[in-house]
Amino acid sequence: MTGTRDRILNSGGEFFRRQGYAGTGVKQIVAAAGAPLASLYHFFPGGKEQLGAEVIRRSGAIYQQLIGEIFDPAPDVVTAVRNFFNGAAETLQQTDYADACPIATIALEVASNSEPLREATAEVFESWIAEAAQRFRAVGISTRRARELAIYMVAALEGAFVLSRAMRSTEPVKIAGAAATAAVRSALPESGRQRSGLRTGSPARR
Amino acid sequence: MTGTRDRILNSGGEFFRRQGYAGTGVKQIVAAAGAPLASLYHFFPGGKEQLGAEVIRRSGAIYQQLIGEIFDPAPDVVTAVRNFFNGAAETLQQTDYADACPIATIALEVASNSEPLREATAEVFESWIAEAAQRFRAVGISTRRARELAIYMVAALEGAFVLSRAMRSTEPVKIAGAAATAAVRSALPESGRQRSGLRTGSPARR
Repeated sequence: MTGTRDRILNSGGEFFRRQGYAGTGVKQIVAAAGAPLASLYHFFPGGKEQLGAEVIRRSGAIYQQLIGEIFDPAPDVVTAVRNFFNGAAETLQQTDYADACPIATIALEVASNSEPLREATAEVFESWIAEAAQRFRAVGISTRRARELAIYMVAALEGAFVLSRAMRSTEPVKIAGAAATAAVRSALPESGRQRSGLRTGSPARR
Repeated sequence: MTGTRDRILNSGGEFFRRQGYAGTGVKQIVAAAGAPLASLYHFFPGGKEQLGAEVIRRSGAIYQQLIGEIFDPAPDVVTAVRNFFNGAAETLQQTDYADACPIATIALEVASNSEPLREATAEVFESWIAEAAQRFRAVGISTRRARELAIYMVAALEGAFVLSRAMRSTEPVKIAGAAATAAVRSALPESGRQRSGLRTGSPARR
């Protein structure tokens, strides 16, 4: 059975992701978690802001794991990146364009208003970038280029989510996915391209 | 002198952009506009949601113009795209990472909660995509590819804004800008590449 603290974190995460931080009241969070309001302040003495920071870090860790779960079983990094965007497009459709990035809405809301929450979102983005960059380095891409590709992949997905949710279409996620896939493919050293089953020397189509 | 209605729209736009829609109260908006609360309901009988929709469309129109103001004087589309991202990076730095996209925060907040506001954000994104796609078609890129490039450019910028604001760094915007610039360059037909002063046949570096 899930403990009260976890249920409050899950409930907060769901609301923040779907309707943002400012638009979610603490009463709404505890009600959905089936917990008394006092328990929120018991587990999170800093109130909503502390809960927000913990929700951000927790969602960040879950999605960091997800990067591994997508990359590790894939036959090569190019396929992994393609699967990553395809999975995101599927989730969008299945959830009626509600479930995209768990922290993007909060990240934009708090960037100029709450240093503790902004720092939490920055740490999460850095952790995702590091996780993806590690996969790119592992196939022989230079440290600098691997970080650039990782930042580019995360940014492309985040921006595509903004457009896809607004336009209720997976088109932006698919276009961003094709671009990210091509970028990673063209960054692979020759040996990596061979390993990934791609003909060497052919210019990457974007 | 700016009328009350315009001052309320400007004030709402500033707050929504920096702290989001849900986190902004109508009292805060009219106070900053130097207007009585009653005037908000006089000009916007639908209240905050109507104001929100008008702010979104107005910001959208201003930024659509901005695309033209950046693209039209540029010597070629590749330079225009580069200038577009460089200008965004400069604005971020100059405003302490507060001023990025005027509607992204609202777009994420309302996507699953308010159909009128979601539709307004979708219309704005479509108008930006159409504006950029028109520039790409004008240099000989096919209609389909021009739309893809435009979606890709807007998505890359939106996602880079999310990361740049959170991380307080222009690195994501610069990386997204380099990628978008390369994408547009490689989509140019041969004659367009010559016109843009780029050697033909050289593979685009990403």
